[in-house]
Amino acid sequence: MSRFSLPQDPLFQQLNTSLGYDRRLWPHDIAQSKAHAEMLAAQGIIGDDERDEILRGLDAVAAELEGGTFDFDGGDEDIHMAIERRLTEIVGRVGGKLHTARSRNDQVVTDLSLFVREEAHATAELVQELAETLVDVAEAHLDWPLPGYTHLQRAQPVYLSHHLLAYVWMLLRDRQRLRFASDEAAVLPLGAGALAGVNFDTDRTLVARELGFEAVSPNSVDAVSNRDFAFDLLHALSVCATHLSRLGSELVIWSSEEFGFVTMSDAWSSGSSIMPQKKNPDAAELLRAKAPRVVSHMTALHGVMHALPLTYNKDLQEDKEHLFDAVDTVQLSLRAATGMMSTATFHADRMREAAADELIAATDLADLLVKRGVPFRECHGIVAGLVRDAVDNDRALSSFSAEELLAHSEHLDDGVAAVLQQSSWLESKVSEGGTSLARVREQLAAARDALQ
Amino acid sequence: MSRFSLPQDPLFQQLNTSLGYDRRLWPHDIAQSKAHAEMLAAQGIIGDDERDEILRGLDAVAAELEGGTFDFDGGDEDIHMAIERRLTEIVGRVGGKLHTARSRNDQVVTDLSLFVREEAHATAELVQELAETLVDVAEAHLDWPLPGYTHLQRAQPVYLSHHLLAYVWMLLRDRQRLRFASDEAAVLPLGAGALAGVNFDTDRTLVARELGFEAVSPNSVDAVSNRDFAFDLLHALSVCATHLSRLGSELVIWSSEEFGFVTMSDAWSSGSSIMPQKKNPDAAELLRAKAPRVVSHMTALHGVMHALPLTYNKDLQEDKEHLFDAVDTVQLSLRAATGMMSTATFHADRMREAAADELIAATDLADLLVKRGVPFRECHGIVAGLVRDAVDNDRALSSFSAEELLAHSEHLDDGVAAVLQQSSWLESKVSEGGTSLARVREQLAAARDALQ
Amino acid sequence: MSRFSLPQDPLFQQLNTSLGYDRRLWPHDIAQSKAHAEMLAAQGIIGDDERDEILRGLDAVAAELEGGTFDFDGGDEDIHMAIERRLTEIVGRVGGKLHTARSRNDQVVTDLSLFVREEAHATAELVQELAETLVDVAEAHLDWPLPGYTHLQRAQPVYLSHHLLAYVWMLLRDRQRLRFASDEAAVLPLGAGALAGVNFDTDRTLVARELGFEAVSPNSVDAVSNRDFAFDLLHALSVCATHLSRLGSELVIWSSEEFGFVTMSDAWSSGSSIMPQKKNPDAAELLRAKAPRVVSHMTALHGVMHALPLTYNKDLQEDKEHLFDAVDTVQLSLRAATGMMSTATFHADRMREAAADELIAATDLADLLVKRGVPFRECHGIVAGLVRDAVDNDRALSSFSAEELLAHSEHLDDGVAAVLQQSSWLESKVSEGGTSLARVREQLAAARDALQ
Amino acid sequence: MSRFSLPQDPLFQQLNTSLGYDRRLWPHDIAQSKAHAEMLAAQGIIGDDERDEILRGLDAVAAELEGGTFDFDGGDEDIHMAIERRLTEIVGRVGGKLHTARSRNDQVVTDLSLFVREEAHATAELVQELAETLVDVAEAHLDWPLPGYTHLQRAQPVYLSHHLLAYVWMLLRDRQRLRFASDEAAVLPLGAGALAGVNFDTDRTLVARELGFEAVSPNSVDAVSNRDFAFDLLHALSVCATHLSRLGSELVIWSSEEFGFVTMSDAWSSGSSIMPQKKNPDAAELLRAKAPRVVSHMTALHGVMHALPLTYNKDLQEDKEHLFDAVDTVQLSLRAATGMMSTATFHADRMREAAADELIAATDLADLLVKRGVPFRECHGIVAGLVRDAVDNDRALSSFSAEELLAHSEHLDDGVAAVLQQSSWLESKVSEGGTSLARVREQLAAARDALQ
Repeated sequence: MSRFSLPQDPLFQQLNTSLGYDRRLWPHDIAQSKAHAEMLAAQGIIGDDERDEILRGLDAVAAELEGGTFDFDGGDEDIHMAIERRLTEIVGRVGGKLHTARSRNDQVVTDLSLFVREEAHATAELVQELAETLVDVAEAHLDWPLPGYTHLQRAQPVYLSHHLLAYVWMLLRDRQRLRFASDEAAVLPLGAGALAGVNFDTDRTLVARELGFEAVSPNSVDAVSNRDFAFDLLHALSVCATHLSRLGSELVIWSSEEFGFVTMSDAWSSGSSIMPQKKNPDAAELLRAKAPRVVSHMTALHGVMHALPLTYNKDLQEDKEHLFDAVDTVQLSLRAATGMMSTATFHADRMREAAADELIAATDLADLLVKRGVPFRECHGIVAGLVRDAVDNDRALSSFSAEELLAHSEHLDDGVAAVLQQSSWLESKVSEGGTSLARVREQLAAARDALQ
Repeated sequence: MSRFSLPQDPLFQQLNTSLGYDRRLWPHDIAQSKAHAEMLAAQGIIGDDERDEILRGLDAVAAELEGGTFDFDGGDEDIHMAIERRLTEIVGRVGGKLHTARSRNDQVVTDLSLFVREEAHATAELVQELAETLVDVAEAHLDWPLPGYTHLQRAQPVYLSHHLLAYVWMLLRDRQRLRFASDEAAVLPLGAGALAGVNFDTDRTLVARELGFEAVSPNSVDAVSNRDFAFDLLHALSVCATHLSRLGSELVIWSSEEFGFVTMSDAWSSGSSIMPQKKNPDAAELLRAKAPRVVSHMTALHGVMHALPLTYNKDLQEDKEHLFDAVDTVQLSLRAATGMMSTATFHADRMREAAADELIAATDLADLLVKRGVPFRECHGIVAGLVRDAVDNDRALSSFSAEELLAHSEHLDDGVAAVLQQSSWLESKVSEGGTSLARVREQLAAARDALQ
Repeated sequence: MSRFSLPQDPLFQQLNTSLGYDRRLWPHDIAQSKAHAEMLAAQGIIGDDERDEILRGLDAVAAELEGGTFDFDGGDEDIHMAIERRLTEIVGRVGGKLHTARSRNDQVVTDLSLFVREEAHATAELVQELAETLVDVAEAHLDWPLPGYTHLQRAQPVYLSHHLLAYVWMLLRDRQRLRFASDEAAVLPLGAGALAGVNFDTDRTLVARELGFEAVSPNSVDAVSNRDFAFDLLHALSVCATHLSRLGSELVIWSSEEFGFVTMSDAWSSGSSIMPQKKNPDAAELLRAKAPRVVSHMTALHGVMHALPLTYNKDLQEDKEHLFDAVDTVQLSLRAATGMMSTATFHADRMREAAADELIAATDLADLLVKRGVPFRECHGIVAGLVRDAVDNDRALSSFSAEELLAHSEHLDDGVAAVLQQSSWLESKVSEGGTSLARVREQLAAARDALQ
Repeated sequence: MSRFSLPQDPLFQQLNTSLGYDRRLWPHDIAQSKAHAEMLAAQGIIGDDERDEILRGLDAVAAELEGGTFDFDGGDEDIHMAIERRLTEIVGRVGGKLHTARSRNDQVVTDLSLFVREEAHATAELVQELAETLVDVAEAHLDWPLPGYTHLQRAQPVYLSHHLLAYVWMLLRDRQRLRFASDEAAVLPLGAGALAGVNFDTDRTLVARELGFEAVSPNSVDAVSNRDFAFDLLHALSVCATHLSRLGSELVIWSSEEFGFVTMSDAWSSGSSIMPQKKNPDAAELLRAKAPRVVSHMTALHGVMHALPLTYNKDLQEDKEHLFDAVDTVQLSLRAATGMMSTATFHADRMREAAADELIAATDLADLLVKRGVPFRECHGIVAGLVRDAVDNDRALSSFSAEELLAHSEHLDDGVAAVLQQSSWLESKVSEGGTSLARVREQLAAARDALQ
């Protein structure tokens, strides 16, 4: 019997159903139902034989879902109802006891918490794989100089290893954020009932332990209204996607003919429907392009939650698609980035040639003067004048005669020539975290350590 | 001397300057400059007397900024340049030594890290104050029943204390997120130089210790490209703002004449320019309205960072206004929420009357049948039929005779009358985290504990 | 032959393929290919017999796609390649001539333009249907008073018809925006080739006419880089979704027990898994909840386009899913809104009772004084004092004696009683666009007119 | 007299006040008040002498605001109240009559409509200026070849004029969107009162005519709830900002040493605090960086309006800052873009050298074969094989002997050599909108026409 006198409008069902996407939650729904049934029996709310029947039935339902033989029904509004319906078909009336001391409100948020924990962990593993790949690639290109850029202008030379390791540290922070999200999802909502708690003496700690949660939610109203852990995962995914977009962007720029620093593998490139010569870094472009999608999922969920009165509202159904697509997008992007980076070919000559641009030694010239006692701000001015002289007259710094140099400053003596040797520009960056080889070797060790 | 042959276009200066907003970073800029000067001297890069001059000068500059007598100059592009210029005016040439082994790139991100740490802490304190206020208000209304709502329909009764405590747990999670942001900002970028490290044997750990950082960034390229900690703070602020929007939304709904659950203090209300009778909950509406603003700041920063090649790009200048306004908005909102909640008047009668709606005992009736052995799903159907009967005939559940009840189910005996007593609906929610008074008292204690 | 020496990595294919979603563009792709083939023959670029073969083949392909018998191939990267592949299977080598003077770059943006035009039109029709429904519902409740709210506080009474018509004017503006989007998409990109134009003397105007475009794009670089028309549609859909979210929000509030102004049909409501009494306005909640999703699609596309150098980049592939889901979401929401509004039941008694709140006549009392020559700002103060007196003493305005009124102002004479008659509050709003019945009747006529 | 018994909390005032930003609306507020006063007198609601006093007072207030001598008061909540207060100070009691038949609700939205109309127009003028500048720059570089890029890979050569004109067409669409926004804001809200219309026989058409509106809003509820025209302007600004971000991005890439296509004027460049050689395209980077800020303002306003019940709610106060900053940002960006583009120096040699890359003639080779009867798809394969041969063996296409070419296809005869002449690649793009000089000249004429 229902309290409704009219069937649902088909259009309403189309708007209302979540089965199209929430079916992927089934393993979590089965797991929580089994834990719930165990607990109901342990507390004497259902009998042990009833529990056994329910567990048997849930295993049978799981087998059907696993094997693709589960028969969804037009009336199944969501995966939770579908599973309970099928359970009752298999085990009979006793199936109707499973929902004792439980509401869909706490059930759905529990499934989602399990999902967040699982996917935060899975994403962290993919982050780890990409980071390990980058460490390997860095090690393989330890002492390959290229220009470091600020404002996309050549600034100071660095080793390719140093540049690539920058992404490793970003990824290590991503892993940190993913762990935070997982921890925040480790509080069991189940047992909150519809919103007020339940009329039974349940044992939530038992359920929590069974499902791998670390605590139970202390307030039933909050338990069913809360989606903070979803925000935490979306935040971690958004920042990670933004990191990957920077990597993708650099690969696109570096693989232009003008830069020529890298060639993506044919296995990670596309051609053109009309231009036979084209080899396009589509994978890198997509890496770049996906971040706004992930960020928008987070923004959308904020929009959904904005101004929403407590406790559960149907609006919360809009949490899942955003979360699912964000997880899928970032995981695929991470896998692709790993594939791309492990097969890309870097071009030592093009990078070295660009890094040989003498102008990028200007800071080092200024620092030479500093070491001779001139205040840095004045050194900056002296060298800027020298650079302007060189640029205006289209000359290399190394072409200036001793007299010409001295005309700019008495301190510009034969130390200048030494500074203008390329390797010296790199190896003088001896400060902690700097690009000198000794420091990069330290860094590699630290990164490997952090990735253990 | 500059390498430029033309002065900057005034329009470019207008686009380029950040002085209008980054001047608020001055205390951090002074602090880092002092720590930097100390370190330069400790490492023998400048002399002790030079250090002393610089420190004296920085204190003088700080005094001018503090006192509002600092004279900004049309040519000051940002607060960093303004301070160095003024320093040199005060102490002469030696001021030009301060920027040794430092770039604006690592300088600005260090100031921002200090800002994030300070404001994460300050915001956490305001979160704490609001949470404490809510705990006090909850305790003062411990056993005041009102309906809990799902879908904005009366669902099951809860105590006002229980409802208000839901917000306390949200705020405790906000505090957690703020701490995470602060921890992520605890890695010192200074010493990365422009992007490659510096040509001097600096002691970054000394600077870190001086400024309260817990580690130094391991990669100079990452150090100047990174704004993750800004995202972490924006994330914490966004979720907090979204929480406050839910509180604001409930206050608006509850203060409508139709609900009548709360009256905001006159001190937190506005009138109308035309309607003399109006008393509007403007403060609650603004609490509700601010979340999209904060979230948009986070989204905008993601947009700025999207696809941005390493290392520093001018685009990163767009980090500050978003961060500053988000911090200011949330801090003001938290203060306002505390003020509002501590002065609002709740109306026991209106809430109690609404909570007395017998229909919200329906779950309890179903659970009564469960306890008599009927599978929950069947109980749900029986009670739904009873409810439909009541609604269709516009009758109260308590008006049904024993015969009428038995016609719906043999199990609907005189236990029904007991269940229909209002207090029993609340006090039967004995599960952990539920709304029964004993459980709420536990919760209050736990909340106070967490807030210690 | 291909210029690639390695097959694509399966992971890359998974990232790269758009077939999963772009297949819905097939009718547009077939249409443009037919128009293109016609033009190629008309210009003598292919022979008439070749054209006939190609047209026959395209019809066959269309029949397979229509009938669901089209066999997609693992190697089909997108719908365009799938159709060309199948065409060549059917008609042989001549199929390879179809892509003469065309690139996928102009092909895909042409399909998308056709999609935007079609869906802008289809959405406008659904907007129209909802507006017509609202006009009908307004007419059926022409003179049902309810309070108008500002700040969710009762402000001044209006007729339900007047309130509902507000949404009609919003929808009429939505229709305007949809037309703008359609007009902006009416410029044919096809013929731009990859980016530079093509090596053939094509007749783009012929193709434009055939496909219903009104002009041809004047610049080939812009033609393949441009997605403005997609933004225009997303804008129209976003504003429309935001309008619907306001309607949904009002329906949720109005269907609360506390307001009790409306009951959604059982056909548009859901029950609860645990609470047998619940009847929830899920459809209205989802109407409310969908706006952030639609807006986020628009934001995401801005993110994708942000900083993207000309011309085509793979990032642009991220346009389609956002557009498709936005269209589907808004169209379903509009249909649902029409269904909901045409079956909702309004409650005259609850609305009338709320509208009888005497305090909402306060402005009218002030205006009474205005008509007696008192400056409005003073009238406002006099009536505010009267209201405060009433509120503080918990009295109705109509209970004040003549003496008491005169004590507040000499002008508060027996005109007061007349003003306090409910209908007078409504019928005095005689200004254009106001809520008096005569004005609402005018409005109904104007709305019907606009909807013709 | 007020109906409130407590003064507002200072913290509430801080949250509530909008004076800090809405004061810029004063010219619109004065204009509407003057028109309103005129109408009140024309309708006999106030006397002609009262009107004259009010007009005199408003002029005096305007003079103070204009001259910067207006004394704001701690109690001024917003610009509207400040002006009315000051008016009454100047003209006495009669100032209190100005607010007759008007509410702040319709007043504020009228000011905002006037603002939108004015700024849409002003922005359109700046769009026009930038477009005219780009046309001039295009004309000055009419036949300078450079590679057109897809996927940032060289694709086909185009003339710089053609590339720059692409932005002109974008800007012309921006102008279209700005006009739409202005048109949508041309409906007068004033006269709607608080929400229900007013108790006076006003003449709204007179006010509309006076203020330059084209119609009056037909529904008072909608009039005060509506912010669609703000969305329309934000949409126009967002798309324009996204266009500018693409231009900025290209300038950054083109001014890298690796591309070397353009040098920004020293007047539009910045140096580095540490690297004396640096000349950074900061202005171009900021052009690129601003789009997310503008888009976020639009998103935020959607967030504010989401789920907001009718009619006026305080949340709507959050419309102004978003709108103001979006307008200021885009206007400054447009001005800056004009300044930058009119002073940038393009480098013919670097562009020509890049455009001489023979591989970008591959499509033309394929089309050569097409003209000899080979189906395009086969031509594509033949040329792809040739390209692979060239790339694998590091040879130029023009180095292949006649025999080698024939080995790839019998059709690769001496026509190949002709195609490999650079100018032929460009001049063969004869299709409408293509890059051949004749077509670009047509385009220039069309663009100048559209800009008249």
